Amino acid sequence: MPDPRRRQITGFSNPTVKYLRSLREKKHRKAAGKFLAEGLRLLTDARECGRLPEVLVMADNRDAHPLLAVLERAVLDSGGEVIETSPDILSKITGKNNPQAVAGVFAEFDTSLSALARDRSDIWLVAQALRDPGNLGTMLRTGDAVGAGGLILIDDCADPFSVEAVRASMGAVFTQQIAQATWQDFLTWLRGGDGQLVAASLRDAVPYRGAPYAAPCFILVGNESQGLPEDYETACDLRVTMPMRGRADSLNAAVAGSVLAYEVLASLEG
Amino acid sequence: MPDPRRRQITGFSNPTVKYLRSLREKKHRKAAGKFLAEGLRLLTDARECGRLPEVLVMADNRDAHPLLAVLERAVLDSGGEVIETSPDILSKITGKNNPQAVAGVFAEFDTSLSALARDRSDIWLVAQALRDPGNLGTMLRTGDAVGAGGLILIDDCADPFSVEAVRASMGAVFTQQIAQATWQDFLTWLRGGDGQLVAASLRDAVPYRGAPYAAPCFILVGNESQGLPEDYETACDLRVTMPMRGRADSLNAAVAGSVLAYEVLASLEG
Repeated sequence: MPDPRRRQITGFSNPTVKYLRSLREKKHRKAAGKFLAEGLRLLTDARECGRLPEVLVMADNRDAHPLLAVLERAVLDSGGEVIETSPDILSKITGKNNPQAVAGVFAEFDTSLSALARDRSDIWLVAQALRDPGNLGTMLRTGDAVGAGGLILIDDCADPFSVEAVRASMGAVFTQQIAQATWQDFLTWLRGGDGQLVAASLRDAVPYRGAPYAAPCFILVGNESQGLPEDYETACDLRVTMPMRGRADSLNAAVAGSVLAYEVLASLEG
Repeated sequence: MPDPRRRQITGFSNPTVKYLRSLREKKHRKAAGKFLAEGLRLLTDARECGRLPEVLVMADNRDAHPLLAVLERAVLDSGGEVIETSPDILSKITGKNNPQAVAGVFAEFDTSLSALARDRSDIWLVAQALRDPGNLGTMLRTGDAVGAGGLILIDDCADPFSVEAVRASMGAVFTQQIAQATWQDFLTWLRGGDGQLVAASLRDAVPYRGAPYAAPCFILVGNESQGLPEDYETACDLRVTMPMRGRADSLNAAVAGSVLAYEVLASLEG
């Protein structure tokens, strides 16, 4: 008897295809509370972090892979659904020309501040009004690399569950905790426990190299074009600045956060 | 008498609009030897670096600005052309929904290795098969920030003159030297003078922090998904590795290059 949780989809106009495609748009993600992630490696990272897709979509021309077999089994065992379809339809779902052979639909996580485990790490990344999903995903990836606890998104940031952010995070969306909050709620939460808030800044700042970082250190970067609002910087415990030897007065936001995160890592471990 | 080098374009089907739009595609850029850059700030950076657009395109709803007046005068004085058009047409040209009020057409630069002035800086960035134009522009931007001489592009990289790369460079496309070369030609050029070639690597590498960097230092980063080929790493004078505390085994390419570039800057200046 065929497993009812396995099925084949061959038509572009199939309602499931339309539903899956719709998850590329934020309003549909929020309505469904689901998001898409692609690629065997990323889905394996997710599985090893205890996150299984509710729906696994596989291209029918995929190569067999032991990790894919493990993933498929785990999805079915957890009550999820497995769909086989054509590479063309998968490409339509993910919006990528050369799609990965596998994608998954995940339930969005709780992104409230209260869900954060502050003692999980000595380093946290905080982004204010970060608008580019690629930058957001890159911050998550760097967070994973420096062993940060997670990324806290202040004000109106890009959606961490967008396909672009998930892709740029290279799986870190599953390993890093993610919270979304207003500045006031964040400050209240932060000041309710230990934590040094450090801003990359041009105003009244000390050199980032050798600055007195203290754990747990919260590294705050601002919006791509505006930087941080002045009163946000004022609320920080430490303002640090990076050398700018050329004409520009700022770095890419994810780069600034990453250079600072590696400096903090070296400082706290040194 | 109206200046013949000033004109108004009102139609989307105007051949000049078609030509300007075509510069978004690499084959048309290469055929014309021209590229597009947007924004008053970026065009002012270009002007102050001695690069003037051959054609200046301005939205007819733009706000007056003293720097725009200076730019307009400079373009006309150098024999260039000034075009006024609608914001809609400008948006069509640059492919951006909320276009800047001004864009310019520049002649592409000489990107041969022989055009590089090696003694211009102690730091150079080198990228191998970097495919993402955003990463490429971000590397240029970081290069400007650390006072690098420029960016050398090895093998099949994204086009540094693409709209996306120019945009991400935030003007550094005009301040940084750019060269394109094969790996063999680059090595021959490099070994014809002083230079330490440093790779961000996972193989047989020393910690990036406190490694024996020497000027002029050439910092090599590899392709986004493949990293550097093993024989490229072997050819390097120094292989360094960055801490990876999480699940991932690599950073975003532009982030890796930037963290390393700031480390080299601190080391050489320390």
